[in-house]
Amino acid sequence: MNDSVDHRLRGSWTPEGASEIELAPKAVRWLAQRIGECTANAPVAPDSAMAVAPSRIPEAAHAKLVAIVGEEHVLDEAAERLGRSGGLSYLDLLRRRYPSSPPAVPDAVVLPGDPEQVQRVLDVCVEHDIGVVPFGGGTSVVGGVTALRGDKDSVLVLDLERLDRLVSVDPVSRVAVLQAGVRGPDAERLLSVHGLTLGHVPQSFERATIGGFAATRSAGQASSGYGRFEDMVTGLRLATPRGEWRLGVAPASAAGPDLRQLAIGSEGTLGVITEVAVRVRPLPERERFEAFALDGWERGTLAVRHLAQRGLLADVTRLSDVDETASTLALAGSWKTALLRRYLGARGIADPCLLILGWYGDAVHRRREAVRSLRAAGAVGLGTAPGHAWLRNRFAGPRQRDALLDLGVCVETLETAAHWGDLGPLYERVRAALHGALDRPHVLCHVSHAYETGASLYFTVLATRDEADPIGQWERAKRAASEAIAGDVPATITHHHAIGTDHAPYLAAEIGELGVDVLRAAKSALDPTGILNPGKLLPPQPQ
Amino acid sequence: MNDSVDHRLRGSWTPEGASEIELAPKAVRWLAQRIGECTANAPVAPDSAMAVAPSRIPEAAHAKLVAIVGEEHVLDEAAERLGRSGGLSYLDLLRRRYPSSPPAVPDAVVLPGDPEQVQRVLDVCVEHDIGVVPFGGGTSVVGGVTALRGDKDSVLVLDLERLDRLVSVDPVSRVAVLQAGVRGPDAERLLSVHGLTLGHVPQSFERATIGGFAATRSAGQASSGYGRFEDMVTGLRLATPRGEWRLGVAPASAAGPDLRQLAIGSEGTLGVITEVAVRVRPLPERERFEAFALDGWERGTLAVRHLAQRGLLADVTRLSDVDETASTLALAGSWKTALLRRYLGARGIADPCLLILGWYGDAVHRRREAVRSLRAAGAVGLGTAPGHAWLRNRFAGPRQRDALLDLGVCVETLETAAHWGDLGPLYERVRAALHGALDRPHVLCHVSHAYETGASLYFTVLATRDEADPIGQWERAKRAASEAIAGDVPATITHHHAIGTDHAPYLAAEIGELGVDVLRAAKSALDPTGILNPGKLLPPQPQ
Repeated sequence: MNDSVDHRLRGSWTPEGASEIELAPKAVRWLAQRIGECTANAPVAPDSAMAVAPSRIPEAAHAKLVAIVGEEHVLDEAAERLGRSGGLSYLDLLRRRYPSSPPAVPDAVVLPGDPEQVQRVLDVCVEHDIGVVPFGGGTSVVGGVTALRGDKDSVLVLDLERLDRLVSVDPVSRVAVLQAGVRGPDAERLLSVHGLTLGHVPQSFERATIGGFAATRSAGQASSGYGRFEDMVTGLRLATPRGEWRLGVAPASAAGPDLRQLAIGSEGTLGVITEVAVRVRPLPERERFEAFALDGWERGTLAVRHLAQRGLLADVTRLSDVDETASTLALAGSWKTALLRRYLGARGIADPCLLILGWYGDAVHRRREAVRSLRAAGAVGLGTAPGHAWLRNRFAGPRQRDALLDLGVCVETLETAAHWGDLGPLYERVRAALHGALDRPHVLCHVSHAYETGASLYFTVLATRDEADPIGQWERAKRAASEAIAGDVPATITHHHAIGTDHAPYLAAEIGELGVDVLRAAKSALDPTGILNPGKLLPPQPQ
Repeated sequence: MNDSVDHRLRGSWTPEGASEIELAPKAVRWLAQRIGECTANAPVAPDSAMAVAPSRIPEAAHAKLVAIVGEEHVLDEAAERLGRSGGLSYLDLLRRRYPSSPPAVPDAVVLPGDPEQVQRVLDVCVEHDIGVVPFGGGTSVVGGVTALRGDKDSVLVLDLERLDRLVSVDPVSRVAVLQAGVRGPDAERLLSVHGLTLGHVPQSFERATIGGFAATRSAGQASSGYGRFEDMVTGLRLATPRGEWRLGVAPASAAGPDLRQLAIGSEGTLGVITEVAVRVRPLPERERFEAFALDGWERGTLAVRHLAQRGLLADVTRLSDVDETASTLALAGSWKTALLRRYLGARGIADPCLLILGWYGDAVHRRREAVRSLRAAGAVGLGTAPGHAWLRNRFAGPRQRDALLDLGVCVETLETAAHWGDLGPLYERVRAALHGALDRPHVLCHVSHAYETGASLYFTVLATRDEADPIGQWERAKRAASEAIAGDVPATITHHHAIGTDHAPYLAAEIGELGVDVLRAAKSALDPTGILNPGKLLPPQPQ
């Protein structure tokens, strides 16, 4: 078994070659004071504990797949299949740690080399009625790549990692075409040769792919400046069970509904995205990251709202609530924290909320007016050091989670968005739901994406893990939070994590039963036999 | 017959109460020099020339409709029905002028008073299998409201003019809910009471409605600053044959495909939009309209591209080509033109292209940098007078068309959009197609909407009308232009006029046969018996 498989089997987020995070003893002590003592627990389910059934791909289909992609790109070994059995949600990681709840294992992994091969693989799967799970970075935290087979006898994972090319660059139109399997850092590296950037930097950046960004309506940390991923997409190429589908001929159009926005967010259920045409921008010549403190959550969100509604948002705009800010400060060191608290207290800030702003290139032009607006809201500048500290750790969250898991901590995130007028009540209700469902949880929250009409809320939840029923523990907490989100205050069940399996029960509350019917109809038109990503996006149909 | 009906019967754009435009003799002479002499022709088909068959609405259905909306809101009179027989394309106007080609006349006009009544009217139409044409301002120029009956025995026009309320305003979230029948000026009037504006100002502004803007993916003259209409929509309420459908709970979401973008642009074929939640902004405290001249189309579009790609576009950004600029100058007066040409010539501008920029509120902050960029591109400032002249005449185009029609001129517009790299070839091909299909046409063009990745092209075509076959004359020219647009250079068949009937044959070339299948599937899910807006958007199915 090679390292990369072992790494995936462990259910670790940390990319190959990157160092794992070790939590400082003081951080562990600090957390224990809040949630109670945890029992360190690092059981990694050994291969032997996971019963992997023999592949059920029909022999004739296997031969055809080998003929299309080559023998070395049809993987049947248990380790390879286990390695693509799901994504990286807390529940996914638990399933790998607790052999009593084994993951769904695909019958094979197929690695096509180009969009034409993807289409031909789909054609074989239609012919032999094999389920297909499109797989990019495998970073779904909502069960989006779980290898469910639905009503199919066999299911294969279509790993797109070989679709790793920059297909074309049009520097005049500022449009680049990237293959679906290009990972975040590779997209930036390929574009930087042309002096260009995509500017899409979600927390999953190091592992996630262009196709995955499109399939899940991803939003990056710089979305206030560069837009959500759907704003960047000018065109798409998909392989579907009914043949290739291409969308996007112009920057804007009134030629009926915008079907690009149907393909974006379709999570592999309508087609396999093989290429994405994206709007690109020149590499910024400078950047500035800095921090401010605001007194309390209400004033903090008000200040961000004013920035958003006056067109003064920084490219990266991120406001932590009082508890998240306190956690950040605590982990920075106790004497520093005390000093900072005294400094802020003298400036009228009793309950600091940390605001991180990141400016790229010409965005700095907006900064002066933005700072004026913040000062009017009572913000105190903290300089660039905390901004750059955030920048250094911007992808660390999931790796910290790996370390916390080993310590016996229940740790997960969830997110939503609402209009500004609804944001306060939503924040309170989700917090109350989590506090009601877990014993002594530590709940942190930040606004990660702001718009003229509203903002997202991103919650991090920490609690001692219930070793008797770790999966049930989180399922209950997640259900309570989801019901709060799908409740009376208008809000979305997911701002940027997508639906997958975990949010499917709440989709109808958001888009209506008619909306679900429309999605089912679109799926029937493109995937009449239902081979694509079984069990995802669409809620289970009543029998 | 009352005036408003007469006005509609005449097929005139000019709103009630507004003065009709009379063309100056010098303008008429100038045009004749270009396209040749026309034969003045103002035949308005009298009512008696239009054979209006008795209404075929079943009596039982009629009674139910009366019970829902009241007797005074079910109109059977020939004049009322003729008045909602279609939109305001050149072909629509010709059909009213030439009795040999009578318009499609609906069997009744129904005016519901609120969204609930719209739903109940639809329910009756489902029950009795009656076709339904949703009707807002009736300003479609692509056949979008032609009262076709498809496979139905009878068809009614659902006129939404009584849905004229501002339902709610949330000044914190900057979201307002407007009923679908609210016209452009009324939306601004209703919002201005709250210090707010929508900022959506297409040329059809004076007559078109909120529901129509959404149903057709409208783009306004200030789209560079305020966005296209689909960018403004946060939520929608639709009546469908399967019941009410509501969409939009948050400013952004990753909960699957964005179905709002399926409803927007659905042109009344998936549901009847009854309410639209829109992002609103504070009324701007100031505005500045001004003009610049650039030397030639290529330099002009390059300058606009640089503004777009540097984030420096004015809210209104509009670049005329050399011929359109010459027409504008000619109509301003000959000695003024001569003087201006000499002034520009001395500054190196031999072939002036007029650039109109309009700045609202804080957008003026961008102006200094924008002007610097323009000067670097060789632009010469012409001050605010031409900008304000454009502002005064911004809605005059369709009224001028009325006057030109009376003079025997063939006059119509068409539009498209492409990525910047394709814009030059597209411009040449469409011009060539129009010049090839018409005898001595005068073809004008401007960029009306600019984006980072491309821009729209808006063509105005003038020619002497072929009195023997006026409809065939334009159909041939339109077909030639459409085939050029749907040809080798990637471009959209419509940037902001929608599909209707006229563009339906070109839809599959743009979104693929699979895209058309997806739209058909969505329609089957929402409108299983196909009562909604027969013959629109979807291309005719092969028998």
